[in-house]
Amino acid sequence: MRLDELATRIGAELRGDAAVEVGSCATLEDAGPGQVTFLSNPRYRAAMAATRASAVVVAAADANAVGDAAALVADDPYFAFRGAMVALHGRRPLPPVGISPEASIDETAVVGSLCTVRPGAYVAPRARLGDRVVLYPNVYVGKGAVVGHDCVLHPGVCVYDRCVLGDRVTLHANTVIGQDGFGYATARAPGDGETKHHKIPPAGNAVVEDDVEMGANCSVDRAALGSTFVGAGSKLSNNVVLGHGVRLGQRNLLVAHVGIAGSTVTGDDVVMGGQVGVAGHLRIGHRVEIAAAAKVMHDLPDDSGRWGGTPARPLTEAKRAVLAGQRVPELVKSVRDLERRLAALEGEGR
Amino acid sequence: MRLDELATRIGAELRGDAAVEVGSCATLEDAGPGQVTFLSNPRYRAAMAATRASAVVVAAADANAVGDAAALVADDPYFAFRGAMVALHGRRPLPPVGISPEASIDETAVVGSLCTVRPGAYVAPRARLGDRVVLYPNVYVGKGAVVGHDCVLHPGVCVYDRCVLGDRVTLHANTVIGQDGFGYATARAPGDGETKHHKIPPAGNAVVEDDVEMGANCSVDRAALGSTFVGAGSKLSNNVVLGHGVRLGQRNLLVAHVGIAGSTVTGDDVVMGGQVGVAGHLRIGHRVEIAAAAKVMHDLPDDSGRWGGTPARPLTEAKRAVLAGQRVPELVKSVRDLERRLAALEGEGR
Amino acid sequence: MRLDELATRIGAELRGDAAVEVGSCATLEDAGPGQVTFLSNPRYRAAMAATRASAVVVAAADANAVGDAAALVADDPYFAFRGAMVALHGRRPLPPVGISPEASIDETAVVGSLCTVRPGAYVAPRARLGDRVVLYPNVYVGKGAVVGHDCVLHPGVCVYDRCVLGDRVTLHANTVIGQDGFGYATARAPGDGETKHHKIPPAGNAVVEDDVEMGANCSVDRAALGSTFVGAGSKLSNNVVLGHGVRLGQRNLLVAHVGIAGSTVTGDDVVMGGQVGVAGHLRIGHRVEIAAAAKVMHDLPDDSGRWGGTPARPLTEAKRAVLAGQRVPELVKSVRDLERRLAALEGEGR
Repeated sequence: MRLDELATRIGAELRGDAAVEVGSCATLEDAGPGQVTFLSNPRYRAAMAATRASAVVVAAADANAVGDAAALVADDPYFAFRGAMVALHGRRPLPPVGISPEASIDETAVVGSLCTVRPGAYVAPRARLGDRVVLYPNVYVGKGAVVGHDCVLHPGVCVYDRCVLGDRVTLHANTVIGQDGFGYATARAPGDGETKHHKIPPAGNAVVEDDVEMGANCSVDRAALGSTFVGAGSKLSNNVVLGHGVRLGQRNLLVAHVGIAGSTVTGDDVVMGGQVGVAGHLRIGHRVEIAAAAKVMHDLPDDSGRWGGTPARPLTEAKRAVLAGQRVPELVKSVRDLERRLAALEGEGR
Repeated sequence: MRLDELATRIGAELRGDAAVEVGSCATLEDAGPGQVTFLSNPRYRAAMAATRASAVVVAAADANAVGDAAALVADDPYFAFRGAMVALHGRRPLPPVGISPEASIDETAVVGSLCTVRPGAYVAPRARLGDRVVLYPNVYVGKGAVVGHDCVLHPGVCVYDRCVLGDRVTLHANTVIGQDGFGYATARAPGDGETKHHKIPPAGNAVVEDDVEMGANCSVDRAALGSTFVGAGSKLSNNVVLGHGVRLGQRNLLVAHVGIAGSTVTGDDVVMGGQVGVAGHLRIGHRVEIAAAAKVMHDLPDDSGRWGGTPARPLTEAKRAVLAGQRVPELVKSVRDLERRLAALEGEGR
Repeated sequence: MRLDELATRIGAELRGDAAVEVGSCATLEDAGPGQVTFLSNPRYRAAMAATRASAVVVAAADANAVGDAAALVADDPYFAFRGAMVALHGRRPLPPVGISPEASIDETAVVGSLCTVRPGAYVAPRARLGDRVVLYPNVYVGKGAVVGHDCVLHPGVCVYDRCVLGDRVTLHANTVIGQDGFGYATARAPGDGETKHHKIPPAGNAVVEDDVEMGANCSVDRAALGSTFVGAGSKLSNNVVLGHGVRLGQRNLLVAHVGIAGSTVTGDDVVMGGQVGVAGHLRIGHRVEIAAAAKVMHDLPDDSGRWGGTPARPLTEAKRAVLAGQRVPELVKSVRDLERRLAALEGEGR
């Protein structure tokens, strides 16, 4: 693709030779002739001048520092580079449309048009697949579950009975939607020799709205009552766990190993870094950001900015606390010194 | 079901119209006519007066605050409500009994009566299934493994060779029992160019006792020697990891993302919140509770109450430490002020 | 096997009756006649004198404390005991060589000699398996993926399209290699009603080098550009997550629940304890050790020893900080006392 064509496609202004041909994308370090790269993290600015790429997607402020490469100047270089990735690499080619004879589809299941169901995939009674759904090998869709249009379920994904996926949902391998939540009533029932954990059979389900994507090995509990809920456009990374009755708002971003306990509700555009933990029955407000590894133990108001630490507090405060904590050994010394000097003064007075 | 019948079934005292019919359960907020709800978390007491439910399962102390609803008064409202869930919703209907022709069962495997083995499930040589076992699609039962009566293994569960499940064990989707533990002898063996991690082939297995339930995506290592062990009646949530040679007592409750390192032993009735980490080779005493996200680095005695923080200490102490930590910046200021004033006094003395 | 033969096999010096026969290994506590045990963790020294084992693999310094057992004296008792495990127990017997008719192998896939492909396993177009590869039931090997010689992929493992495994790679059940990384450009594109997370289709893959082993339920992202990389001889425990573009050096050891964010690079012989978190775009130097549950937020230099805490700092410093933190409540009291006494002195001066 010529650079002028690419510039048009991604909405960038070209500064350089329009006729240069590019075929793929690469990192600043690895890119060579015929490749496009980008700068969005200032950490890598030094590497840009030395790049051997044919073109760099870059903000106007950095456009003079691209070395010998052409500049593709964009307001949002990361988004524009994403356009170049789509234009030059495209999306993962899907397996050919059609129902494998080695798949198991119950005769009461409803399958939309142009679906792809690969060997070992299983669709239970009364389940419904929308149009253009792709089930990779060994996917399980439970009884009465609903999978919307254009969903892609990678190998080993399991959607339990009665759960619902919206349109354009992508679930990566071995992610599980709708297993029973962690609900037990601990009691010594008549007839029990001792206290037991009596299972509360969950009557609810899990609902995943449109345009959600999840990584591998995630676990989303079904609700005891009503629905566990993942709002439209939310993205979860790998090994994320949502407890029963959690309700995520729209466009949440949850990085790997996040765990949210039961019945917690999040607003829209919430961001959680890796390994964040959120206690149950909380409300996390709209547009809140929670730093990696923070543990949240109380409600966070809408638009309350960035939080961090354990228990989570405003991030600047959490950082100050870390710095202050590092001064404690020195503080102990100062106090000992003060005590000695004060005792001396007090002695003088006598 | 009439309310008087339900009251009898769940062992509650009915205060209200015995002839009212109820058909399902719901939350305080969502419930409407014909539905039963409950109050056990005081956080939701305000919502109770406004509920539109036909009946509320409630403790005697709150029975007057149910608004227009009937009260189903119980000593343990949560356990009684669990009874209502079982009575009105029942358990997940299991797939029809029978061995699918699309399952693979080795001819040397032993399958009990009334088992259900769905397409894509695999039972290896000399494995044994008890009676009424349910294997959902794509379950794997390894060579010589034993699955007790009435076990339910959800899609994609893997039980490695020689592992043993007791009766009434439920494993949710993609949970793995008995993979090799993390055992390597790091050494430069004769012939090695450099130090390597030499695998210790595990000779042990993993044993899961009666009435255990695990969530999705859990990983329970097999032991190097002897058995990794999950005691009867224990319940694990999702993505929990038990290292090789861990021995859990009876009725443990482990919330999501808990990780316990190798050879640690827990007593009975231990509770661990989400993301708790426990170091290896420890002994966690009977009836100990560990708060979410705590990291345990030494033995905890029997009946030693609640622990929290990193490293874990008694929970009240851990909470006090958090509060104290927040006062450090102020403390730094106080000490600087003291130093200034003391220097002034010392100057006067000269 | 006679003890003299075993001693030769494992490179140990026998002190005791050469003709004694042993058949298996066991722990100090469980071992009985005919069994071999070992001492490497000093924690268990007291148990050694009481062992009923026929022989104990032990360091020279402890060889006199073996009680009635024979001593198998070795410089590295743990490595020597590993030799006894291999000699007496051997490795897991693999399923019989051959391609199951219930497996799905695309006709354009290349399968090496002496491979084992079990029922429900799937090999996509243009994938390549080396010689003596074992695919357990329900394994998925994606389009154009490469699996080296002598790899063992346990049930439910998923290797995405174009990913590459070296030789002798072992992946435990339900581990996933090469799912899409967490890459989105958040923007309000022309036509969007609101800001959205636009997926960056990953053009890269994941490469796992020779002699790597991973536990169950791990998730290794594919790179957006280039390769996510796991260096030769590295060992990962269960539920470990590597973000897109992570590059692990050789012989890394990562314990369960470790999470490493995108683009971070580690040196050789790095060790991370359970639940460690590492932020993205960092460089972790050669031979660094990170204690369990530490959170790493900046680069760590080569040979910089052991790190711990949140944020991670040198381990001795982190431990000192914990101790100091526990003294803060007392410090608050001391400062209050100083203030009172100083005020009294100042009052006197007036």
